[in-house]
Amino acid sequence: MAATVVCSSSNVEVVCESGPVTSETRTPVCVLGAGLIGGSLLRAAVAAGYEVWGYNRSAAGALAARADGFDVIDDLPAVLKRAADTDALIVVAVPMPAVDHLLADIAAFAPHCALTDVVSVKAPVAELVRRHGLAGRYVGGHPMAGTSESGWSATDSTLFRGAVWAVGVDRGTHPDPWTRVVRLALDCGSAVVPVVAADHDRAVARISHLPHVLAEALAVVGAAGGELSLGLAAGSFRDGTRVAATAPDLVRAICEPNATALLEVLDETLTVLGTARDSLRANGTLGQLIDAGHDGRADYETVRRWEITDIEAGDHDWLERLHDAGLRGGIITRLP
Amino acid sequence: MAATVVCSSSNVEVVCESGPVTSETRTPVCVLGAGLIGGSLLRAAVAAGYEVWGYNRSAAGALAARADGFDVIDDLPAVLKRAADTDALIVVAVPMPAVDHLLADIAAFAPHCALTDVVSVKAPVAELVRRHGLAGRYVGGHPMAGTSESGWSATDSTLFRGAVWAVGVDRGTHPDPWTRVVRLALDCGSAVVPVVAADHDRAVARISHLPHVLAEALAVVGAAGGELSLGLAAGSFRDGTRVAATAPDLVRAICEPNATALLEVLDETLTVLGTARDSLRANGTLGQLIDAGHDGRADYETVRRWEITDIEAGDHDWLERLHDAGLRGGIITRLP
Repeated sequence: MAATVVCSSSNVEVVCESGPVTSETRTPVCVLGAGLIGGSLLRAAVAAGYEVWGYNRSAAGALAARADGFDVIDDLPAVLKRAADTDALIVVAVPMPAVDHLLADIAAFAPHCALTDVVSVKAPVAELVRRHGLAGRYVGGHPMAGTSESGWSATDSTLFRGAVWAVGVDRGTHPDPWTRVVRLALDCGSAVVPVVAADHDRAVARISHLPHVLAEALAVVGAAGGELSLGLAAGSFRDGTRVAATAPDLVRAICEPNATALLEVLDETLTVLGTARDSLRANGTLGQLIDAGHDGRADYETVRRWEITDIEAGDHDWLERLHDAGLRGGIITRLP
Repeated sequence: MAATVVCSSSNVEVVCESGPVTSETRTPVCVLGAGLIGGSLLRAAVAAGYEVWGYNRSAAGALAARADGFDVIDDLPAVLKRAADTDALIVVAVPMPAVDHLLADIAAFAPHCALTDVVSVKAPVAELVRRHGLAGRYVGGHPMAGTSESGWSATDSTLFRGAVWAVGVDRGTHPDPWTRVVRLALDCGSAVVPVVAADHDRAVARISHLPHVLAEALAVVGAAGGELSLGLAAGSFRDGTRVAATAPDLVRAICEPNATALLEVLDETLTVLGTARDSLRANGTLGQLIDAGHDGRADYETVRRWEITDIEAGDHDWLERLHDAGLRGGIITRLP
């Protein structure tokens, strides 16, 4: 395993590749959902030279995308038939509650297409994919990028540049759709982290869903202090509550499908906070919390990623080896 | 009471005045401590035309300031004698654990000078000031500005621009030192929030000390997920843990002296989080938390400040009226 250090994770804006880094012919891409992530993917894939079209449930959203020159309509069967006719890679880019409905139509109109998604949890999507008989061509995906805004108006072709993009290496994954998904992620400017669904869901509970929950709680307690408190609030409150500005339905759709993993990290967090609280009450100090938190932030700032260079899709044990490499900080930044 | 809306608090970078807004002769300023806040104050006050000098406990820090052209030495008696000779305003700009020692020397060498501080809590400082017999010329202060860095190298003459600066209106405050402190804050580009010590300490527990504690807890729980979790971390984790990068001793010095108020808001927070946790376990939803948090953030983004224009220091009931105005979002942006 080559271990070239290519970037640190503390500043994802400046890391890794940006722009197309694969030389293979790009197969068409069909994006279902033109919100922040799906719409930004439409823009990024077009910029990278893909043939791309999309679907959006609301006619207004589709119209907004078309007004900006993108091929997005609100006719799902038509969009999916085109995908089937062109052997496109289908990307499910809707919040978790809308996934089941889309998969039913995919199973009806384009059951043999390569299939991925950009949903914030992976095991629940994989389970629905299996129920709809689509598992054979499915590879889970999750670009770790976003803002607190949503909808077509918030889309940005550079959203994925320098980000990491989790791509599934679960048992049974087929090399062809896997390679297509990785290529798309790389072409959008991301580095790929190979990960299995259960590990992904536990990890994002810690570093994505918990931050949302804590931001909401901080906003609640801060606002309870009224005008004086909010009027004195500065950078620590502003940054700590930033993601609480996200649309509530979207936050629920992100966090609640991952209830089991989130419950576990919430319990850890309550223990950490409760211990600090008890120490503060008993002896006026926050105990070990401050040093431990500083160490945790330092771990984040200094975590090093290394480039996986010697595993090709379809090699003997490729899925197991990629899974292991991903757990140890390995990323993919180019295809052979 | 005039109620001109002058700015919203959601974006303190763009609000209110910047640069000198007072026309009175500026009396000299003596800053004790040349770290992030004290050093930035030295820079800002010089830029605003004040005669300024300072003290720093470490000779290296004083040397670094002198190398940048600022009059900072490590001889506290000499610095204080100059303050006494010139009737300077003395600014205590050290962390809470170092305040007692400084006040002893102030009482010895410059007991009649106007005195303020920029410490993160107000009631504990006021109590020490009282014990040292310095209450008669003291006015508490707290600029709501900072970064996660510290020391002279982090100082910035624009740190206070567009920030709010809490200035004490506790019973017994005298108009002369109060006016000097307000003038200095305005000349550094801040808007002044009049507040009494106990209210201040309760408010900052919510919007400054709690954000630190939650950032530390998030960093601890995130880092516990190892390389995969930290490697997948993106904006929500980065922003949510930003202030956990602050030097641990400084965080303790900020939060722990405010233990009583912080304990109260920590208990509120544990209740909010525990309720969400129980809901997640019982029915898979986070209950009311997400909507309430979104509302809280919206309150923060839309809180309006209005300019206090009709209360002069020394007027009948001026302290009570300013106290009341501050509680209702009033700020001072200019002196008569």
